[in-house]
Amino acid sequence: MINKLNFNSYNKFIENKAYDAIVEEKKYIGYYTLPEQNIDSILAYCDSISTNIESIAVIGIGGSSLGAKAVYEFIKPVKNLKRKLYFSESTDPINIREILSKLDISKTHFLVISKSGNTIETFSIYKYIYSLQNNASAYTFITDPDSPLEKYANKINASVLYLPDNIGGRFSVLSTVGLVPLALCGIDIQALLNGAKRTKDSFFNDGYLKKILLEKASYYAKNHSQYHINCIFAYSDTLKYFCEWYVQLWGESLGKRQRNSAFNVGLTPIGLIGPKDQHSFLQLIMEGTRDKSVTFIKIEDFNNEMKIPNISLPHLEELDTLNNLSFAKLINMQCDSVMESLKTQKDIPLDSITLPCVDENTIGKLIYYYELLTSLVGELIDVDTYNQPGVETGKLILKKKLNAIIGK
Amino acid sequence: MINKLNFNSYNKFIENKAYDAIVEEKKYIGYYTLPEQNIDSILAYCDSISTNIESIAVIGIGGSSLGAKAVYEFIKPVKNLKRKLYFSESTDPINIREILSKLDISKTHFLVISKSGNTIETFSIYKYIYSLQNNASAYTFITDPDSPLEKYANKINASVLYLPDNIGGRFSVLSTVGLVPLALCGIDIQALLNGAKRTKDSFFNDGYLKKILLEKASYYAKNHSQYHINCIFAYSDTLKYFCEWYVQLWGESLGKRQRNSAFNVGLTPIGLIGPKDQHSFLQLIMEGTRDKSVTFIKIEDFNNEMKIPNISLPHLEELDTLNNLSFAKLINMQCDSVMESLKTQKDIPLDSITLPCVDENTIGKLIYYYELLTSLVGELIDVDTYNQPGVETGKLILKKKLNAIIGK
Repeated sequence: MINKLNFNSYNKFIENKAYDAIVEEKKYIGYYTLPEQNIDSILAYCDSISTNIESIAVIGIGGSSLGAKAVYEFIKPVKNLKRKLYFSESTDPINIREILSKLDISKTHFLVISKSGNTIETFSIYKYIYSLQNNASAYTFITDPDSPLEKYANKINASVLYLPDNIGGRFSVLSTVGLVPLALCGIDIQALLNGAKRTKDSFFNDGYLKKILLEKASYYAKNHSQYHINCIFAYSDTLKYFCEWYVQLWGESLGKRQRNSAFNVGLTPIGLIGPKDQHSFLQLIMEGTRDKSVTFIKIEDFNNEMKIPNISLPHLEELDTLNNLSFAKLINMQCDSVMESLKTQKDIPLDSITLPCVDENTIGKLIYYYELLTSLVGELIDVDTYNQPGVETGKLILKKKLNAIIGK
Repeated sequence: MINKLNFNSYNKFIENKAYDAIVEEKKYIGYYTLPEQNIDSILAYCDSISTNIESIAVIGIGGSSLGAKAVYEFIKPVKNLKRKLYFSESTDPINIREILSKLDISKTHFLVISKSGNTIETFSIYKYIYSLQNNASAYTFITDPDSPLEKYANKINASVLYLPDNIGGRFSVLSTVGLVPLALCGIDIQALLNGAKRTKDSFFNDGYLKKILLEKASYYAKNHSQYHINCIFAYSDTLKYFCEWYVQLWGESLGKRQRNSAFNVGLTPIGLIGPKDQHSFLQLIMEGTRDKSVTFIKIEDFNNEMKIPNISLPHLEELDTLNNLSFAKLINMQCDSVMESLKTQKDIPLDSITLPCVDENTIGKLIYYYELLTSLVGELIDVDTYNQPGVETGKLILKKKLNAIIGK
């Protein structure tokens, strides 16, 4: 993984301060230790699931689904996976019915994932599915130890797996929350963790990424009142759900009242997919308000020799320049061309990440890179990166409305 | 369709000016007249496609695909459609291979859509597919009259349909570009146009939407330097691709240098889906920088009686308040709760759109509403709503790179 910045931020004092803070919070924030975890128990659990099970359905929302989805959708198109993975994360009845129509319930294992054990969406869907399948062995629950959900699972004799301590949903993809559904589908979770470990080691052991991440984070933080929209422009459809994961990670971590001033700050994440969004969002980046940074992500080796055939179309000979070109080369040329066109503007902060290929190791590296970047920026813009107090009011209002219906 | 604004903008002078400008540009901008078009020739063309054809594949990108996709994905889950619709819009070889694996080429009709006739993505994919299927009757081309693409199509004896005059890609969903693929799948395009006509008449004949649209557009324009991120928060998965269409329409139309000052301005569109994004982007709206407006969209009647069963789970009795509630009611309560929670903040401009149900007429109304809103805001922030000069530089750079490869 190569990351090139097209901007500089020389403030060693700020960078060192951020690094020290991360080294300190590493002692108690749980996600930092995930790359080294022992996965034997997860693999043993996965082996215990019958080979008759053809599909895995995650019932969970937000941090309980976005990470696994990002990895699964990245790997799925290039690997022959042993099971299909579905995500039921909406209370939209049309969506629930559509997902159920794709599943053979008798050949599906359901993973019910909820840290707190009282997520409205998760349990409305769970109750509905439980009314169709009340065999406890069809379910595994992933939750906090000693939560009411653990007690429930024990009561009905269903399997329970635990979340490690001090890991919020959006930083949980490399814990049981992400690893269990991915391993059940045949994704190499050890390679995923190894990738994350590479990024971690490079950052904490004075490697290449320490310099890059500190420079990028301090640039973003220093300029966040101007460049407060941070776009990822990824040139592969396989990264579509990675972008959704990034949106949650970045938005929910960095959109906060500041710890000391209580001032509302925030960096707005946008996920774009090239070349599609060249025909959509690019115009706004190129000519709109100068409030956006752009990180291009491209894949060096698609492991795909598919070429544009050597066909000349009468009256369209202009397009013969495409002939014999591989699609992989074309899409990367498109990425380079758009990046060069934005460079002509001078006042749009750009950087590029080149991923070596599409595999578990690669996405593990990228995930951990973004987790570290988020932690660093959160520290520098003075917010609590790991909480989300802003979503509580809506939950309380809903609770009142629900109580009002039953006359409580 | 009901739209309630939670903000006011009383500036009759500005509103009248915007209205007069729209009435004037209606004389030459093509999309305004689309709701009244006669669709007999489109329906006759669709009848000419063999009933053996099971799938329609659109080869097109941006404005050539996003509109049809928005309507198709809205209607598909609730209607038994006669054909499946696919979109090939990426040069990512992994994506091309994945789409082809889903198609039986011998039972697929391909719609190649390109206004100019030289879109790189469209023709690289077309050449590839043509190398697998070189029967001209498997293709229909949609392009401008007298374009090189029309000449090519005539040369190989394939069908050609035309784009009406003066309609840019992102305003073309109600023209042949969107109507042909949708009608081929059995979507009621007359109902779609009738919905659009309702919005149009309400706006141009002094109806309810005239007041609302003018007030909303003038508020957005007047406050665009503060509230320059405009979120749609739609409470139904069926609106996911509508949001993508909106992102192109809004971003590419309104991210521009101003006509008179050449100053970079722009309104940044964000599409969110509830309740999923309550667990992602909501925190940023609630506690982040005050630069976002939010439009909630909900569906009044999901025509779906699916209920949460009356099941009490031991240790999770707290969740019994959900029992017997319909999912449709729950998702709308979630929408209301989040909206109320944001109202507590006072400085976040909100409005809500309630759609009556999921059908063609409804999405037609909503599409035309957003087209009119875009035209109004574009007029008021002084940009040319209908061009996209910012995407040309990247195309030229790519062309140079392609020429360099073949040594031109």
